[in-house]
Amino acid sequence: MALLETSKRSQGSVLGSVNPDLASERQTASFSVEKLTALLDGGAEQTRIRRAVVEAIQSDPVFSREYQYFETQNERYEAAVRKAVHLQKKMHEMGWTENGPEYKYIYRALSGDVAFLLHRVFMRSISVLGSDKQIAKWIPLATQHRLIGSYAQTELGHGTYLQGLETTAVFDTATQEFILNTPKISAMKWWPGDMGRSATHTVVFAQLYIHGKCYGIHPFIVQIRSLQDHSLCPGISAGDIGPKMNFEHTDNGYLLLKDVRVPRENMLSKFCEVRPDGTYVRQGSQKINYFTMTAVRISLISDEVLTPLMKACTIATRYSVVRRQSKLKPGEQEAKILDYQTQQEKLLPQLAAAYAFHFTNDYLQELFNRGYREIQKKNFDMLPELHALSSGFKAVITQHCTAGVEICLRACGGHGYSLLSGLPSLYTKILASCIYEGENTILLLQTARFLIKCFMAASAGQPVPPSVTYLAAVKHRKCPAKNKLDFLSPDIYTEAYQHVAIRLTSSTAAKLQDLIQSGVKKHDAWNQCTVQLVQAAKAHCHYIAVKNFAETVEKLETKAGIQKIMKHLCDLFALHGIFSNSGAFLHDGYTSAAQMDMVTASYLDLLAVIRKDAVPLVDAFDFTDQSLNSALGSYDGQVYQRLYEWAQKSPTNQMSPAYERYLKPLLHNTLSKL
Amino acid sequence: MALLETSKRSQGSVLGSVNPDLASERQTASFSVEKLTALLDGGAEQTRIRRAVVEAIQSDPVFSREYQYFETQNERYEAAVRKAVHLQKKMHEMGWTENGPEYKYIYRALSGDVAFLLHRVFMRSISVLGSDKQIAKWIPLATQHRLIGSYAQTELGHGTYLQGLETTAVFDTATQEFILNTPKISAMKWWPGDMGRSATHTVVFAQLYIHGKCYGIHPFIVQIRSLQDHSLCPGISAGDIGPKMNFEHTDNGYLLLKDVRVPRENMLSKFCEVRPDGTYVRQGSQKINYFTMTAVRISLISDEVLTPLMKACTIATRYSVVRRQSKLKPGEQEAKILDYQTQQEKLLPQLAAAYAFHFTNDYLQELFNRGYREIQKKNFDMLPELHALSSGFKAVITQHCTAGVEICLRACGGHGYSLLSGLPSLYTKILASCIYEGENTILLLQTARFLIKCFMAASAGQPVPPSVTYLAAVKHRKCPAKNKLDFLSPDIYTEAYQHVAIRLTSSTAAKLQDLIQSGVKKHDAWNQCTVQLVQAAKAHCHYIAVKNFAETVEKLETKAGIQKIMKHLCDLFALHGIFSNSGAFLHDGYTSAAQMDMVTASYLDLLAVIRKDAVPLVDAFDFTDQSLNSALGSYDGQVYQRLYEWAQKSPTNQMSPAYERYLKPLLHNTLSKL
Repeated sequence: MALLETSKRSQGSVLGSVNPDLASERQTASFSVEKLTALLDGGAEQTRIRRAVVEAIQSDPVFSREYQYFETQNERYEAAVRKAVHLQKKMHEMGWTENGPEYKYIYRALSGDVAFLLHRVFMRSISVLGSDKQIAKWIPLATQHRLIGSYAQTELGHGTYLQGLETTAVFDTATQEFILNTPKISAMKWWPGDMGRSATHTVVFAQLYIHGKCYGIHPFIVQIRSLQDHSLCPGISAGDIGPKMNFEHTDNGYLLLKDVRVPRENMLSKFCEVRPDGTYVRQGSQKINYFTMTAVRISLISDEVLTPLMKACTIATRYSVVRRQSKLKPGEQEAKILDYQTQQEKLLPQLAAAYAFHFTNDYLQELFNRGYREIQKKNFDMLPELHALSSGFKAVITQHCTAGVEICLRACGGHGYSLLSGLPSLYTKILASCIYEGENTILLLQTARFLIKCFMAASAGQPVPPSVTYLAAVKHRKCPAKNKLDFLSPDIYTEAYQHVAIRLTSSTAAKLQDLIQSGVKKHDAWNQCTVQLVQAAKAHCHYIAVKNFAETVEKLETKAGIQKIMKHLCDLFALHGIFSNSGAFLHDGYTSAAQMDMVTASYLDLLAVIRKDAVPLVDAFDFTDQSLNSALGSYDGQVYQRLYEWAQKSPTNQMSPAYERYLKPLLHNTLSKL
Repeated sequence: MALLETSKRSQGSVLGSVNPDLASERQTASFSVEKLTALLDGGAEQTRIRRAVVEAIQSDPVFSREYQYFETQNERYEAAVRKAVHLQKKMHEMGWTENGPEYKYIYRALSGDVAFLLHRVFMRSISVLGSDKQIAKWIPLATQHRLIGSYAQTELGHGTYLQGLETTAVFDTATQEFILNTPKISAMKWWPGDMGRSATHTVVFAQLYIHGKCYGIHPFIVQIRSLQDHSLCPGISAGDIGPKMNFEHTDNGYLLLKDVRVPRENMLSKFCEVRPDGTYVRQGSQKINYFTMTAVRISLISDEVLTPLMKACTIATRYSVVRRQSKLKPGEQEAKILDYQTQQEKLLPQLAAAYAFHFTNDYLQELFNRGYREIQKKNFDMLPELHALSSGFKAVITQHCTAGVEICLRACGGHGYSLLSGLPSLYTKILASCIYEGENTILLLQTARFLIKCFMAASAGQPVPPSVTYLAAVKHRKCPAKNKLDFLSPDIYTEAYQHVAIRLTSSTAAKLQDLIQSGVKKHDAWNQCTVQLVQAAKAHCHYIAVKNFAETVEKLETKAGIQKIMKHLCDLFALHGIFSNSGAFLHDGYTSAAQMDMVTASYLDLLAVIRKDAVPLVDAFDFTDQSLNSALGSYDGQVYQRLYEWAQKSPTNQMSPAYERYLKPLLHNTLSKL
């Protein structure tokens, strides 16, 4: 039944029958694929809604991505704008609203290949940072698309360090205006999406100056293009920043401001206001800003990071049971490459990570919702913990998933390298997530700063937030495992992870203190510890991910085989981490060499167990062929036929002027002589 | 003086003065950059010849790569063909010949961005596999470009496992012809370069059948396109396989053969001949084929793997002293990002690896030349060792350098993600080297097979090749280091690497034997050990690379500061490997936790030392601005100006139809209302 439904949904498969090498993998699933899909979606009703959205979007030819891999950057941009405009109509037709249950599935169904994403950030920044009057003026205009917004924060010379931004906004009391300038080339706004070619307005972040005094970074609404003819406004230079590794559909832009004047009312003034006489007034708590960053970092995990890894796993796993190469046993047919231990060792840990981080994401969402409720009650206590966890996990999950997609790509050999596999564009896109919304190393150091602070507090017997109370735990000095099966006990491996996180935090805290006590200045001491601080932050997140996965498995229904397979994946996720970072576990003798050999044995055993369910486990992600957009990963596994048919449509098979211009003259002398 | 010369050569810098943040880095070099360049080139005379070639190529506008990042796949292909044709003329003009000293620098000077590379493989395969008569017929035609050759081995369904190829060549005694067919879709030739659009001929590898009996894989010369009008020959379907992650300039192709007949003389017959009556005759030793694969794997390391890593290091290092971000010390100017320990820890180990593998490549070249001399004397004894080392190092170096380029890219934040940085295309191109000429995992398993065999032989007291005699060495049970300075002793760390390589090889050999003795079939046992066999092969190569680097440093001249800085890099390369794979060294207690802390301390200390010479160390690679083709990496460090100027030239800044078609109607209702 589940099989039939999935089969029906894979409308992209025009080739018909399922490759028998793939079909056979589905016969022996140890669990209900349909139930696992519902678990991932958060309930069968959610699955139904999601599928309805996907069906509506993917059956509409305007949203087709069929020729995407053949298109130029200009064509991709135009298609994204076309889709964004069409989406308005579609939503109206379907009765979908921004507050409806369908909304969150639209972006996934479009694979993010749509313009005006920054328009939403423009609106959100006005909602969060604007006064009631500003919200009343701008939000309706934006909602009705009577303007197209963007968000101009990053500069050519400044990213993560906001205080360093060089754009200025000088208040002119005489005219009641702010005069905006990008005084140096490094102050030019650079990267804002939708700004290169589309936006009419943007929120510019600039250093506010009143009567010669700098008040720091503030946001200003600035019109950059005419609403009449889209020409640039006076004092504005703007354009597209050119080709990138991906995001061809987005017109990331640059913006130069030369004496651009905006009225006093255009400074977003929920928290700070400039009075007509130039008096600067602060009002309310700005902590909510802090919370917004947290929200953004958590929200990107699902669509921008987990979905690409799940797609890559789907493509690589299906391909690996269709591709046959060399013989495992002499005299037999060539083996499916997924039957090789080395191939299992590449793909299955990525699959386990996809599930692990899916549950981490649930955990973060829940924590975030709790934090939000507290903040509504003006209680900001949870903010530091939320900030530390969202920063750390943004870094750890993007890094892990990016590496995972690359492994999937490379595991498909030459065919993975073809754009038609879908894997290169998944990789080049997910890679950006390691950089945007906070560069990963900097985020990990923020988490580390929180850890060190909490470790000191906990050591002094002071209370610390729930996720770090373990730092004060009494340390076991030795792992109690006696044989390889003990390492399939969540208590055993969770405690090992905990031990490593404590050790790395405490030893780095000690090094930091030693350096400071020996006379090294605080900032130098910090810099000399940063490599180890990053390790501590990663270990902390890894511990929480393992612990959360184990707890999630415990709570799962025991029917339908789901708990059992999730337990295997949890074990694999945990043991793969120990196997690949064995030094951290061996270091102080917590784990002995003999125990590490048990870990290795259990880990390798698990590969063979999970391999049997590999295809059902990726089927449960429930991607349609259109959303995978891959010649290797389609539901029917007709890899070679699809590669061939697709390649024939490539523009590189049109007539090339190269023959008449270069090849013919070169070969000319020999015509009819051979 | 050295500075002046380099400055003079960077013709791409039209902006003029060197960024003072970059200039200051060059004032304090601890060694002579010019002498280090000469060392890398193999002598000052080689440097002179190389620079002359680079100057001749890069001053010729036909070879320009200025608009490369803006071009479509079709434009890239046409440019590559144009360049290949022009190169013939250029070589004639300059008096360069294929046997001259300039030849090896041409490809590097062109950054590989040229067509007809497979034409050379076509010629080589005829020279190696053809009879004297065949050579006499085809080589002159190819040399004069009276045909364009390709090399059709890989199939849609088969790569590394050649015995599995499905293309057939059936001998027809009646007509004295071979009839070639690709009987299934998976048998279609897929990937051959220059075949999609350019080639007129190719060497097809097919299963030979005579009187119904299969004789295995043989090579056949097949004409695929007319020399009159370039139309496909009867029975041939061929075309381009479409977009890839890189190699846009190459027309990788597909080829279907349907009853294509070629005369008996077209089977390359140096080693095997089919007589007119269908008698199959073997002649001579085919071991030379084996040697050819070795030659190819070693030859790609320099241009395809080391050069990209060196370029990436140059770009990322120069950018990291120009980019300033956040403050290290309160109240001071923002710091150069290379002053952060975390940034040093990203970039400097890659720099050390680039030097380490440069010397490994010298070692492999020397070994190869020795092997070649022996083979001329009909002595094939060195072949297994050469095969094992070339396979293992091909895998280890491509893997390490690919990861290194990615680290450099990510270390440049958002700007690294722009194609204009040059880093994305370096990454997407070097990535392919992990797959072509033998997939890395398979190659490492070949090395492992050799290791296991030699370990068994050595254990039994039998003689083994020089590179593996250490496997029989008496094992020290403990690392003798007493303090962190001891870890700057090559003896200490080389022995640690040796210990790990022995331990991983011996323990895996033991596991393999145990499994077989417990009744597991040999091929299953092998498969169950492959994850660990791969580890052993990597450890072996890593050991040899460290040992060779240390020995190279020892032999260097002590003047001009070169030996000293190379010693630092050698230490960094070795300690970074221990730091990042600490589990392997801690496992059996060879290295204690206290010693591992010493390694960490020495490693982190080295980062700060080498950081001072980072820019001179990349300057010594001596890349011109044109060959870097990077807005971030130019010799003058005028990063922001160059990004801005370059972006303005992007086709994405031309008028887009999207405004009239989509944006204007969307915004229409609001015209003049805001």
